[in-house]
Amino acid sequence: MSIGRPAGQLWRRPDSRVEEAFSLPLLSEIARAAEEAKFDALFRADNTRLDFSRVRVSGPPHYLEPMVVLSALAARTRHIGLIGTASTTFSAPYTLARQFATLDHLSGGRAGWNMVTSTVGEENYGDQPLPSKAERYARAREFADVAIGLWESWEPDALVLDRAAGVFADDEKIHPIGHRGRHFSVRGPLNVHRPPQGRPVLVQAGRSEEGRDFAAEYADIVFAAADDLRGAQAFYADMKDRAGRKGRDPDSLKILLGTHIVLGATEAEALSLEREWTDGVDVGKAVEYLQTVVSPHLRLAELPLDEQVPARLLDAAEALGEEQHQRGLAWLRTHQGSTVRQLALRHRQNSLHLGFTGTPEQAAAELARLFRARAADGFVLSHSHLPEGLELLTSGVVPQLRRAGLFRHDYEGPTLKHHLGLR
Amino acid sequence: MSIGRPAGQLWRRPDSRVEEAFSLPLLSEIARAAEEAKFDALFRADNTRLDFSRVRVSGPPHYLEPMVVLSALAARTRHIGLIGTASTTFSAPYTLARQFATLDHLSGGRAGWNMVTSTVGEENYGDQPLPSKAERYARAREFADVAIGLWESWEPDALVLDRAAGVFADDEKIHPIGHRGRHFSVRGPLNVHRPPQGRPVLVQAGRSEEGRDFAAEYADIVFAAADDLRGAQAFYADMKDRAGRKGRDPDSLKILLGTHIVLGATEAEALSLEREWTDGVDVGKAVEYLQTVVSPHLRLAELPLDEQVPARLLDAAEALGEEQHQRGLAWLRTHQGSTVRQLALRHRQNSLHLGFTGTPEQAAAELARLFRARAADGFVLSHSHLPEGLELLTSGVVPQLRRAGLFRHDYEGPTLKHHLGLR
Repeated sequence: MSIGRPAGQLWRRPDSRVEEAFSLPLLSEIARAAEEAKFDALFRADNTRLDFSRVRVSGPPHYLEPMVVLSALAARTRHIGLIGTASTTFSAPYTLARQFATLDHLSGGRAGWNMVTSTVGEENYGDQPLPSKAERYARAREFADVAIGLWESWEPDALVLDRAAGVFADDEKIHPIGHRGRHFSVRGPLNVHRPPQGRPVLVQAGRSEEGRDFAAEYADIVFAAADDLRGAQAFYADMKDRAGRKGRDPDSLKILLGTHIVLGATEAEALSLEREWTDGVDVGKAVEYLQTVVSPHLRLAELPLDEQVPARLLDAAEALGEEQHQRGLAWLRTHQGSTVRQLALRHRQNSLHLGFTGTPEQAAAELARLFRARAADGFVLSHSHLPEGLELLTSGVVPQLRRAGLFRHDYEGPTLKHHLGLR
Repeated sequence: MSIGRPAGQLWRRPDSRVEEAFSLPLLSEIARAAEEAKFDALFRADNTRLDFSRVRVSGPPHYLEPMVVLSALAARTRHIGLIGTASTTFSAPYTLARQFATLDHLSGGRAGWNMVTSTVGEENYGDQPLPSKAERYARAREFADVAIGLWESWEPDALVLDRAAGVFADDEKIHPIGHRGRHFSVRGPLNVHRPPQGRPVLVQAGRSEEGRDFAAEYADIVFAAADDLRGAQAFYADMKDRAGRKGRDPDSLKILLGTHIVLGATEAEALSLEREWTDGVDVGKAVEYLQTVVSPHLRLAELPLDEQVPARLLDAAEALGEEQHQRGLAWLRTHQGSTVRQLALRHRQNSLHLGFTGTPEQAAAELARLFRARAADGFVLSHSHLPEGLELLTSGVVPQLRRAGLFRHDYEGPTLKHHLGLR
């Protein structure tokens, strides 16, 4: 479950509690509600720049730093996993490994790291352009190798605490990693002893060839984005296949599908909320923002709002082939029948994710259908609005899934790996 | 108050709770005890390498990552400040500014940053040697400028949350910083809105010329190390003078003196604890460790344990003039009358800090004397042992100081700046 970011226009509702959105009490309340419902984990997305194009158009353009948020929530929860996003392009592996190891210690084994290579934000980390995708993934692989090496640099029984002998730790069970690679030189060992899970759960969300291969090799969880059943199934099958070809049990790689649900107590209420979500949107600004996502070359903002995107423009933008826009352009191709206005509003609501609107019963049925159709092993859900959206999710959708035998009744172990059925 | 690291050999006492030293429950318990006693802040030291030479000789050779520890403790406390150490040499300013801004938000304005330039750990952050002290401080100044610029990049009223107009934030009140310097290029703005304190409290601990000047210009707190009254007074006077020469009110720079106290209910008990602290120490290893601190050129480990360090060797080591050993050599000079064994044990007990042993009454009198003699505006205290050492500190020393009119009865404001009387 993804938490804490007011979505779309629903922060404008009188009871949205948006003033508390950056405060620990509300974040804790949401975290505890998710834990009470027995979700696997909380998920915090991130970004390494302020998105100026969103400052006026929608919900928050900014992000509290995930590591710090999750550590505070570790102290306010007891069971739920804590997955935070951090960039391999803009971080140093020794610091990142220490922070996740510490979070894993303090939470008793509930840490997860969403490894991203970042597609923006380079202007805040030096004067070099963003490295190419191939370069970023090469760095990400080396980064992950270093981090894993550091987490394993203390053997499980290296912390001795032998009072009689006066031995705090056994230096023969603590090993430098001596890494010297193309991107990093890290001697180690880590100065945090081995975390409870051995290493945090590793999460990856890339959809490119490089991202899929990286995930198939390193990840425990893939955070998938697809906007229809067929697309989700194809991605699911491909990832399980890749994991198998890497010599892994495909079941050890969990595919969690990002899904935006707008919930209402009745279908009419849900549809009304959906309209409310998008009604207040400044469509001009939403189109401008969508343009930055799909491709600046495709001048969406100059097209008539109530016409479709001409096929020749889409072809031309695709022909330019810039990697950071492949996913947006593929999304546009899927929705070619929509007008520019419809595209902008749909994107405002669901970004590039699967989305649907309805009652808890309908939502549960839809999630069950996706699960049974092998489109996902699970879901990353956002609450649509506070307080009702969260309440309908935890007290409406979850019990429905439980009745269908698709959701746990209680946690069966202490760590996030337990919740996910890993190992 | 510095928390959570079992010191010296006292972790070997049967009831030391050392097994819990890296767990949130014990860290929270200590934090709450300090808050109940109305201390200004918790202080977490740090290091960016595992100190192999300490693995067998003493207490923990390793450090949980301070930012993550303090965020968890923010969620377990309500008033006490949270000061964490982070390196300007091994961090990126955009990430560090985000993490401290987030900690300040989640704690309601209780964050403090102990800015260190690091003297070790370079082997975990690349293949370059540690930059010279001058270079590290030049980077630290630029780092602080960038971080402060980022914290101030959102005007105080930039977060609008205007439901009716649909304006989340006012983009005219959010400003890129456009920094292009010798060490960093950071466009900004920060993607975290302005923290409650404006910026976290800034702490600095350098004793060199560069460190003192940096602190006089940027710091709210200087964490001072001295090992006698005269040294502390001289440092205090010098720092207040430097602050004045920078155009600051000298009272806006608080000098907190690091002080190690071994407390006993009676003087005999305290002295017995002091012996226990050092009795179990492997003196050979303690000398080896001290040698790394004072100077590897001064081959302490090859000298007879029960003789003094020959003056000519000390002169020769000083003549080599390596910056990272100046402080250790100055300490050695102060204690020239001690044998190698005494030096090693004294260093094991107090490192380079002021230390004394006695009852809470004696400790309170000593702290009051240092305060009244203008040797310190306050102290960074460590609890000597758990659970009694902490109890004697909070329920013994603090009430004594309170009776002398030198310690608050309750917090008077919500933020760390309030506790410190800043602004």
